Amino acid sequence: MKVQCNREEVLETTYSALFDMGLLISSRGSDGRVNAMTVGWALIGKAWSYPVLMVAVRPTTYTHELIEETNEFTVNVPSDDIREIVDYCGKVSGRNYDKFKEKNIAIENGVNVNSPIISDCVAHYECKVLLKSKVIPELLPQETREKHFYSKNYHTLFFGKILTTLKEQ
Amino acid sequence: MKVQCNREEVLETTYSALFDMGLLISSRGSDGRVNAMTVGWALIGKAWSYPVLMVAVRPTTYTHELIEETNEFTVNVPSDDIREIVDYCGKVSGRNYDKFKEKNIAIENGVNVNSPIISDCVAHYECKVLLKSKVIPELLPQETREKHFYSKNYHTLFFGKILTTLKEQ
Repeated sequence: MKVQCNREEVLETTYSALFDMGLLISSRGSDGRVNAMTVGWALIGKAWSYPVLMVAVRPTTYTHELIEETNEFTVNVPSDDIREIVDYCGKVSGRNYDKFKEKNIAIENGVNVNSPIISDCVAHYECKVLLKSKVIPELLPQETREKHFYSKNYHTLFFGKILTTLKEQ
Repeated sequence: MKVQCNREEVLETTYSALFDMGLLISSRGSDGRVNAMTVGWALIGKAWSYPVLMVAVRPTTYTHELIEETNEFTVNVPSDDIREIVDYCGKVSGRNYDKFKEKNIAIENGVNVNSPIISDCVAHYECKVLLKSKVIPELLPQETREKHFYSKNYHTLFFGKILTTLKEQ
């Protein structure tokens, strides 16, 4: 069962999963279609006076399309039990696969957003986009540019205001 | 005495101080001049495969000038004991005041950066700039723009790769 909690209660779990596996972003298009994507690059803290979660999403992804359309998303913190799902959601595109169906991933409704939360995760953040920014390639050190941006598919940085924090009880 | 530690050990302290008081950025220009500035907006996590601390700094500040010049900075986590110093460092400019002298703030050398660390703080991150980004005003919701950017002094977002984490022992 999911219950609302303070952000401090799930901070360490979030940080640990981010460095270990990545986090799962989920979103729902206006046509009702849902998707989940693994994100490896995320930051948490405070900005513009709000609690904020920033996620880096490549513009070619289906998740990017859904966030641009709805201006919201959830960030779900996986436990070790669903490591295989986290790997899978980072490899295939929601344009071609219904990841939830393929992997039998249960979802439930969010509290303050239309995006779903992923039941088997242990913590959840409901976010509304507060700001978008871009990776400016010219400002990247050459080493970083060559290592991570050889495809020139530069990330959008979505800064989400955290509306709700939930945990599994 | 300062000792190196894992980031996890000081995560909660950092997060708590950020939401309570703010954090102190410190930097040293190539002429040897040092400065400290309070920052209220910061995010911590992982990006471009590195542990990262992002700080939002207005371009008019002396700290901005020093980071642009040296591409590095430290982030220092204050305790409640130095709340008055945190307030002070957020109010006056290092261009006009030697904040360290005025408030008798002790500093010591960093391990992997030339920027100093602030002795009376309880945790410290040594950062090298990995990426700079800008707040793009057109992408801000109107409410955020009017509340925080009436002066049009839009922040630079410095994404610093965390080279070293230290704590007071």
